[in-house]
Amino acid sequence: MNQEVAVIGIGMTKIGEHWETDLRDLMIEAGDLALMDANVDGEDIDAIFIGNMSAGLFIGQEHLGALAADYDALTPKPSTRIEAADASGGAAIRMGYLAIKSGEFDIVLVNGVEKMSDLPVEEVISAIGTSSDQSWERNFGATFASLWAMIARLHMHEYGTTREQMAQVIVKNHKNAVQNPLAQFRFPVTIEGVLRTGMLADPLTNLDGAAWADGAAAVVLCRADYAKKFTDTPVLISGSGQASDTIAIHDRRDITTMDAVIKASKIAYDQAKITPEDVDVAELHDSFSIAEIMAIEDLDFVPKGQGGPSVEDGLTKIGGKIPCNTSGGLKARGHPLGATGVAQVFEVVQQLRGEANGRQVDGATIGLTQSLGGTGGTAVVHIFKRR
Amino acid sequence: MNQEVAVIGIGMTKIGEHWETDLRDLMIEAGDLALMDANVDGEDIDAIFIGNMSAGLFIGQEHLGALAADYDALTPKPSTRIEAADASGGAAIRMGYLAIKSGEFDIVLVNGVEKMSDLPVEEVISAIGTSSDQSWERNFGATFASLWAMIARLHMHEYGTTREQMAQVIVKNHKNAVQNPLAQFRFPVTIEGVLRTGMLADPLTNLDGAAWADGAAAVVLCRADYAKKFTDTPVLISGSGQASDTIAIHDRRDITTMDAVIKASKIAYDQAKITPEDVDVAELHDSFSIAEIMAIEDLDFVPKGQGGPSVEDGLTKIGGKIPCNTSGGLKARGHPLGATGVAQVFEVVQQLRGEANGRQVDGATIGLTQSLGGTGGTAVVHIFKRR
Repeated sequence: MNQEVAVIGIGMTKIGEHWETDLRDLMIEAGDLALMDANVDGEDIDAIFIGNMSAGLFIGQEHLGALAADYDALTPKPSTRIEAADASGGAAIRMGYLAIKSGEFDIVLVNGVEKMSDLPVEEVISAIGTSSDQSWERNFGATFASLWAMIARLHMHEYGTTREQMAQVIVKNHKNAVQNPLAQFRFPVTIEGVLRTGMLADPLTNLDGAAWADGAAAVVLCRADYAKKFTDTPVLISGSGQASDTIAIHDRRDITTMDAVIKASKIAYDQAKITPEDVDVAELHDSFSIAEIMAIEDLDFVPKGQGGPSVEDGLTKIGGKIPCNTSGGLKARGHPLGATGVAQVFEVVQQLRGEANGRQVDGATIGLTQSLGGTGGTAVVHIFKRR
Repeated sequence: MNQEVAVIGIGMTKIGEHWETDLRDLMIEAGDLALMDANVDGEDIDAIFIGNMSAGLFIGQEHLGALAADYDALTPKPSTRIEAADASGGAAIRMGYLAIKSGEFDIVLVNGVEKMSDLPVEEVISAIGTSSDQSWERNFGATFASLWAMIARLHMHEYGTTREQMAQVIVKNHKNAVQNPLAQFRFPVTIEGVLRTGMLADPLTNLDGAAWADGAAAVVLCRADYAKKFTDTPVLISGSGQASDTIAIHDRRDITTMDAVIKASKIAYDQAKITPEDVDVAELHDSFSIAEIMAIEDLDFVPKGQGGPSVEDGLTKIGGKIPCNTSGGLKARGHPLGATGVAQVFEVVQQLRGEANGRQVDGATIGLTQSLGGTGGTAVVHIFKRR
């Protein structure tokens, strides 16, 4: 029987535009907050995993593992960067989890970070595009917005999903973010506002997609049997799954379904021995509004095609059956690519500890995070349980 | 007791300039060769780990995990890219090893790849520089050659290491590469040739450093207790260590010593229950000639300062006590950054199987690989044993 793994500490920076702070400062801030929250010293940490999508393109810095060990004053601890596009944070959590299960480490720090605002806008869009297929999507001019727009259009055609239903996702997530002091956009928006703002890629408007952001989040993972030494509120990782799909959307059997999400979540549900109905709170990858609708379908919260109506019916709002993106999600908490998967865990752990002031889901005991790389080439799903 | 891990298959492309082949083709070729060598089908593979330093900068493609799963026809298997500068390949092997030890996977494919020749020379140098400290080295114009030149100069000052001794490393590695059909530079060079070619960064000439290259290498790792089902010649990973140092050299206690190599190798020696004298063959990170001299010191093959004289005395040549870089090393086999750590394992496994025609170390049973990220911010050491 391999080790079980628990989250014993979490930390996160404010998400947004950090003009006076560089990547390493953000990384250090989140890491320090997580160590303090876990009541561990640097010397207790056995290994570091950094989730980051593209610091090479954004700031001219690869080798973030060594950078983190160095600037967190954790040398000679082994430190490795994990990349899976904007699922990098989720994949880094999973590597930390596997590393503890391997028996080689007792306590690891997982730190997700991205600094996106130092480049001109066209270079940011170009960098984001490197998570699509360079030969068959990016080089033909397909941006992420245009790829998601095609997906959204087909979802509307196949299932009758409406623009209003998509906008409802955005309205919900902005509303939640008002209660999140670390969120990027802490103001409400209306359905009319989402529909009437500038068109990004038909049918998606500028408010349908996550903006870019700077930020970092960190968690401390620990052998579950040691966790009580450090905290009274350990949160168990009771399920962890990852899966892949074609990197380009044209090769998929159905672009309105994320097969990698279905596969990764089945692994996680089976490990956790739960069904989707058992989930009390979830952080989902709403890079675009349609992505959250597809996520609740592919995670089997609702039958395929029922994502749109379910959002309209309030299933996923706080007070609904499965509140989703109580943090504000990628859209309103913010989406610093490599940090996002870790920021999702930050929120779910806050919820399971009962610390999500103003946006708390009453009695939440089981939480889920779902990270997506690109348009679904990578999916990572974790399930968390309050002990 | 966690699982032991064995190498059951290896594959590698020719290393060099591949003008007609792109990154994904190189990756597929190496992966297919490794699967065939291991006698496993794609469906036997449980997970994929990709070692790559900077495809974002070199070819505008991140998200190599999904790319690999897709183009190797291995979806929905989980697939993750690991980055640790030019130790990425070694770090990816280590992640594959930990993943099997975790008990979640039985068989994993580790594939290292880099495609460097598609950019103008100044952009290649710029990309390589992203493994140094962006704020405190790269932005002040320090190239890797200049950083290694400072290290070499101090090593000469402290220990009396000579230019001729450094050149001897290059002469040995080029001689070995003549016998390696997959090597980049299969021709001998002379001490005079190394010393008289153009100066790169005083005291290092153009022949002291590895050139850049395109290429890929792959290994199939398997639970050791299953390995005999697939091969009669499994090679056990009997030790695995990784460590970090400051990313910039100016913060180190001593730039002529790689503390991360000392630390990583101690972990690996202890796990394997061997001493350095037990090593029969080693692949070392000779990104510059001085790096191989420091490696044999920091791996404790010889006392500190004796690296230069030991090379002169023939310790590390084929027929010497510890033959190093029988493949030709980074210098002459070639150094496609993220592929290199996996290419090192390819060579050591060939040696331990007795398949290194023309460069075979007689009776080799214990092999070692040492990967370095940048100027030593990351070090990964593995020890392999013929079963």
